[in-house]
Amino acid sequence: MTTLSAIGEFGLIRRFSPPFLKKLPKDLMGIGDDCAVLPWKGRMRLLVTTDMLVEDVHFLRAKIPARDLGYKSLSVSLSDIAAMGGRPESAFLSLALPAEIRVEWLDAFFRGLKDLAAAERVRLLGGDTTKSPDLIIINIAVIGRADRERIKFRSGAKPGDLICVTGELGDSGGGLRLLLKDGPVDKDERYLVRKHNRPRPHLEEGAWLAGQDGITAMMDVSDGIDSDLRRIMERSRCGVVVDLERLPVSAPLRRTAEKRGWNVHEAAAAGGEDYCLLAAVRAERIKKIETGFRKRFCRSLAVIGRVTERTTGLRYFAGRLPIKLGRRGFDHFG
Amino acid sequence: MTTLSAIGEFGLIRRFSPPFLKKLPKDLMGIGDDCAVLPWKGRMRLLVTTDMLVEDVHFLRAKIPARDLGYKSLSVSLSDIAAMGGRPESAFLSLALPAEIRVEWLDAFFRGLKDLAAAERVRLLGGDTTKSPDLIIINIAVIGRADRERIKFRSGAKPGDLICVTGELGDSGGGLRLLLKDGPVDKDERYLVRKHNRPRPHLEEGAWLAGQDGITAMMDVSDGIDSDLRRIMERSRCGVVVDLERLPVSAPLRRTAEKRGWNVHEAAAAGGEDYCLLAAVRAERIKKIETGFRKRFCRSLAVIGRVTERTTGLRYFAGRLPIKLGRRGFDHFG
Repeated sequence: MTTLSAIGEFGLIRRFSPPFLKKLPKDLMGIGDDCAVLPWKGRMRLLVTTDMLVEDVHFLRAKIPARDLGYKSLSVSLSDIAAMGGRPESAFLSLALPAEIRVEWLDAFFRGLKDLAAAERVRLLGGDTTKSPDLIIINIAVIGRADRERIKFRSGAKPGDLICVTGELGDSGGGLRLLLKDGPVDKDERYLVRKHNRPRPHLEEGAWLAGQDGITAMMDVSDGIDSDLRRIMERSRCGVVVDLERLPVSAPLRRTAEKRGWNVHEAAAAGGEDYCLLAAVRAERIKKIETGFRKRFCRSLAVIGRVTERTTGLRYFAGRLPIKLGRRGFDHFG
Repeated sequence: MTTLSAIGEFGLIRRFSPPFLKKLPKDLMGIGDDCAVLPWKGRMRLLVTTDMLVEDVHFLRAKIPARDLGYKSLSVSLSDIAAMGGRPESAFLSLALPAEIRVEWLDAFFRGLKDLAAAERVRLLGGDTTKSPDLIIINIAVIGRADRERIKFRSGAKPGDLICVTGELGDSGGGLRLLLKDGPVDKDERYLVRKHNRPRPHLEEGAWLAGQDGITAMMDVSDGIDSDLRRIMERSRCGVVVDLERLPVSAPLRRTAEKRGWNVHEAAAAGGEDYCLLAAVRAERIKKIETGFRKRFCRSLAVIGRVTERTTGLRYFAGRLPIKLGRRGFDHFG
């Protein structure tokens, strides 16, 4: 008798996806990337993604304001659309709620959802509400669109490409670490918690990058780059070398790590849920893309590593010194 | 402090849907019907629906074989596509699983899902798997398509129209009643339990009806006709009168009701999850549609009642005798 915890989440996906991937027409892309891709009209394609948030697994009711939870629930799905270079169109919410949930909590939850939906012009077009015996369960499916010529996949990275990220790493993971302990105690720590509770999907960044020549692969940072880079490696059949000293880290995380004795490189590489984007960029295009990104977003696109041959796997350096990373981005069934 | 149980599921929908329904372009249809309707190419429209099944609310792990649960999870969403007269195209599964779930259970769950997906040519194109602290949670979003001229809504029924159902009522509810007691003890009772555990979505029936002239409203029977007819009444601003003696009831339900002392009319009217279709048909078209339905499906389309003016509400008769129905189709937060 093999239990789920023995095969893990990726074992589960590997076990059950093959029969569903057989014989897909060339216009369709299913399991294995941030979104599925379906035909729409002309060159346009539909992007579809679905994400489930389970209380006590993905959030703690007592540690996240309802408004932030509403915002974050939508953000997680929008981030998958961003990762393909698409624009979100509509969202479909399923919500299972214990009977003791107060209407005030729900008002705040929907306010948070609407904050982000309004900002990104996403329409909530449907859903399902039901009762739950104990835990809050949230599922959001999002439909987006993208020009088929611009869609970015996890596959496509080639040795020599540079690995970039569109935002600072580790803030969200740091925030979670604080929530699981004694909670935030100062302004820096509250900043990290806010990054964890209310992550912004990098939709503008994703759409901009998708429009550039030279982006060979893209995905969002959901489990932490140590885990997410392995997805790109698997789909692109490549290796990656990361320079830990080049991981972009916020000043609040840097100061909090120092104060609390955290390894800041480990926090940046293994912390999940930053929901910025990881991209592989052809080396000869990097200067132009870096310049354009800075001009467009008034901050740097951080180059953190390089794509290598498959055989070398994922390696970390601090400058020239090889480093072994202790903790890995978490596998949900790990 | 108002809790959710005080406002109920429909109170919740009424409370939160208005801000999301404002300013929808005329090509879009959101919350309030079985599916959302989105523009696609030419006359084709996308249909989108999402349904969540929560252990101990929608199913009991010990009372439903994993293979049936996989089948039913997809069936519930496909039934919403059937209700609009559409064809399903692709499905997106989110699955939260406790760590003790065995791989054999999952194999069977996916086999059941594939049984129905293969039969209806639906592709599983994506999803999300995650762990759950205790309960199995399943969410399936389905995308379908329909010609905009053929889509059927809950609105549109007019006084004088006849109310029809495409299948026998109450079997699934009877099966649930048995499962919650001592379980099925004979062939009839096992038939009812199977109807509950493995309901067939009426996709062929829905597509056929949608192609007929004279169908003014349609929806699927999910909560029981007593509850579902009220949805049609609300959206169509009408009343309905039902003749309980004309509700189609299977021989196994009739025999089981007699044996166990159930009120068979109540079982047929209040039992949920039959997943056949309810339709309103213009009176002058009914003969042609009844004949065509019998020819196409080798069974009757049952005429169970008539649409009336709004002020008269929902009324039941047994022949000419007015009847008051005791138990109502259940409201999830009731």
